[in-house]
Amino acid sequence: MRDVAVVGAGMTAFGELWHHSLKDLFVEAALEALRSAGADTVDAAYVGNMSGGQFVGQEHLGPLLADHLGIRGVPVTRVESACASGGVALRSAFIDVASGMNDLVLAVGLEKMNDGVDVTNVLATAADQEGEVYHGITFPGLYAMIARAHMTAHGTTLEDLAAVSVKNHRHGALNPKAQFGHEVTVEQVMASSLVADPLRLLHCSPVSDGAAAVVLCPLSRAREFTDRPIKIRASGFATSSMALADRQDPAFLDAVSRSAGSAYKMAGVKPADIDVAEVHDCFSIAEICVLEALCFAERGSGGAAARSGETALGGRRPINTSGGLKSKGHPVGATGVAQVIEIFEQLRGEAGKRQVQDAAIGLTQNMGGSGGSSVVHIFERV
Amino acid sequence: MRDVAVVGAGMTAFGELWHHSLKDLFVEAALEALRSAGADTVDAAYVGNMSGGQFVGQEHLGPLLADHLGIRGVPVTRVESACASGGVALRSAFIDVASGMNDLVLAVGLEKMNDGVDVTNVLATAADQEGEVYHGITFPGLYAMIARAHMTAHGTTLEDLAAVSVKNHRHGALNPKAQFGHEVTVEQVMASSLVADPLRLLHCSPVSDGAAAVVLCPLSRAREFTDRPIKIRASGFATSSMALADRQDPAFLDAVSRSAGSAYKMAGVKPADIDVAEVHDCFSIAEICVLEALCFAERGSGGAAARSGETALGGRRPINTSGGLKSKGHPVGATGVAQVIEIFEQLRGEAGKRQVQDAAIGLTQNMGGSGGSSVVHIFERV
Repeated sequence: MRDVAVVGAGMTAFGELWHHSLKDLFVEAALEALRSAGADTVDAAYVGNMSGGQFVGQEHLGPLLADHLGIRGVPVTRVESACASGGVALRSAFIDVASGMNDLVLAVGLEKMNDGVDVTNVLATAADQEGEVYHGITFPGLYAMIARAHMTAHGTTLEDLAAVSVKNHRHGALNPKAQFGHEVTVEQVMASSLVADPLRLLHCSPVSDGAAAVVLCPLSRAREFTDRPIKIRASGFATSSMALADRQDPAFLDAVSRSAGSAYKMAGVKPADIDVAEVHDCFSIAEICVLEALCFAERGSGGAAARSGETALGGRRPINTSGGLKSKGHPVGATGVAQVIEIFEQLRGEAGKRQVQDAAIGLTQNMGGSGGSSVVHIFERV
Repeated sequence: MRDVAVVGAGMTAFGELWHHSLKDLFVEAALEALRSAGADTVDAAYVGNMSGGQFVGQEHLGPLLADHLGIRGVPVTRVESACASGGVALRSAFIDVASGMNDLVLAVGLEKMNDGVDVTNVLATAADQEGEVYHGITFPGLYAMIARAHMTAHGTTLEDLAAVSVKNHRHGALNPKAQFGHEVTVEQVMASSLVADPLRLLHCSPVSDGAAAVVLCPLSRAREFTDRPIKIRASGFATSSMALADRQDPAFLDAVSRSAGSAYKMAGVKPADIDVAEVHDCFSIAEICVLEALCFAERGSGGAAARSGETALGGRRPINTSGGLKSKGHPVGATGVAQVIEIFEQLRGEAGKRQVQDAAIGLTQNMGGSGGSSVVHIFERV
């Protein structure tokens, strides 16, 4: 396999973008990524998108992207793994370049969720229809059960959950592309509307529109496109049971653990080597569980991480410096690629007020459903 | 890139399978493929599916497949390119094995279309929503315009179109897995209900359920799994404009031409070297246009191919010996993989009454929408 680097990136602001169509969003992000790599076209592209069909009545995004980006003819593959679609798009582009099939490959993630449909029901199609959804559950309910299980087994508190939201909003307030530019307090989180006990509104990531894109090429060619390439050291991907009820411990995300294990092994690094990470905080409890599955915290002890300050900017290992899904926004298919852009900027020293000093190795973790799929990538400054 | 071989295959019968769920279908096909390769599990899988979300309310098919196939944990990526989803799944699996990322990789295609939804409207999400569908067009209408353009420019006749259906039904009648086991006559085709002038019911592929799966591995390891591996010599993939109206010549499928050009170049073979091919006859006119784009017929002269007998079993180069989409059925995401299975069996000499004598090199061509995407693979007996 050839070594692969990220050499360009672009993304739209995330938010309720009522005046932007699906096409507008991905063309804006992809053009910015191409320009940042100084490239006019690519040899191939991958688009991560959860459900253009259900959200806006548009499947077949490959030719749509090629066509409207002005690269008609180029092979473009759409990939989907629910909210991990963006991470899987990056992985597919990585494998393509690593294989030698293509040199310059674009990975785009996008979702247009604000267009009038019933978002909660569309998102529920990422859960097990026969085993879960037919019985009435939706994602806030699934993550509420994960939270309750974690609280019961490990003594995690409502304040622990709130601390994740407070931290991520503080980070997001420093990110001009974030959906929410404001901070929140523990008291505000604890007093926000109850969504699915114990999860309240400010424990939940929002409904968002947006797109993010990165350009990959063989590391050997990277300096043709940028003087600060970021190497992709590893890609890990794993699945778990679709239905939460089928898992031995609902508070432990085994797909995250497996995908991280593969990535650490491929990269030859330990969890302690990671300087900065973007992880999948679709609900505040998710960040806590993910930290444990990534071995950033002992099993059961992830609840203390945000409250202790170790995962904040300035802490031992900052997590979700972009604001995470909670504050930056969560256009589901775009998220996995947007995470990569934050790490790309951190490792290049371009993260502005969110910069983690001397960040050399970064990690992204993106998951689908209630943890039915998870993708982990590890990046390094070269 | 490593050389890659197909070492196992399995598929369900195609048809209106009201008693089989989406899960049932892909587990049946995947298990048969694993057994035929003598394998218990795989390192990774790719699932081609156009729209589980719209057809049956189920996205996130990766973990669903892994879970119900009994290979929980294995990375499974869903890919989509409308009716070319199966072909793209094969291509993705091919690139994965070629890259060295994984050794034993499953490519599955599946679709469950008969479950009560409005199939025509779901399929229309593969066309350009803003440029085509909002104005009322659906796929029979788009292909009717292609047919009319071909008839006007090249003198193609209604009898030419009918001959494609007659040939493919004759082939399909020899295929126990085909949706339709009966032959049709030119007179029956010409007298069938008008769907979108000039296309009649018997020019159209049916609405189908089904799944198909193949197992890939490095050619160097192929004989661990079978004594008759089939090498994948090339994979070509290209896009065109989404909207038919944006093409210079609506009767010429430029994505097919480009994807075939890439594949011929990669394989180092000429069109004349192909002994047998499965092509995308979603409507009878499609087979005619595809033959031209593959350079199996001169541009404008594809209409005569079926009528002359050269594309029938026993002819110079048999096309769609499986019965094609017209007679075998067209569960859209499954089609691209089912095409590969027919060629796999032909090159192994296992096609029974449909066997093409001494077939050594075969080709599959699978397309999405009105030709917005196309995938071509070339296979060889080794």
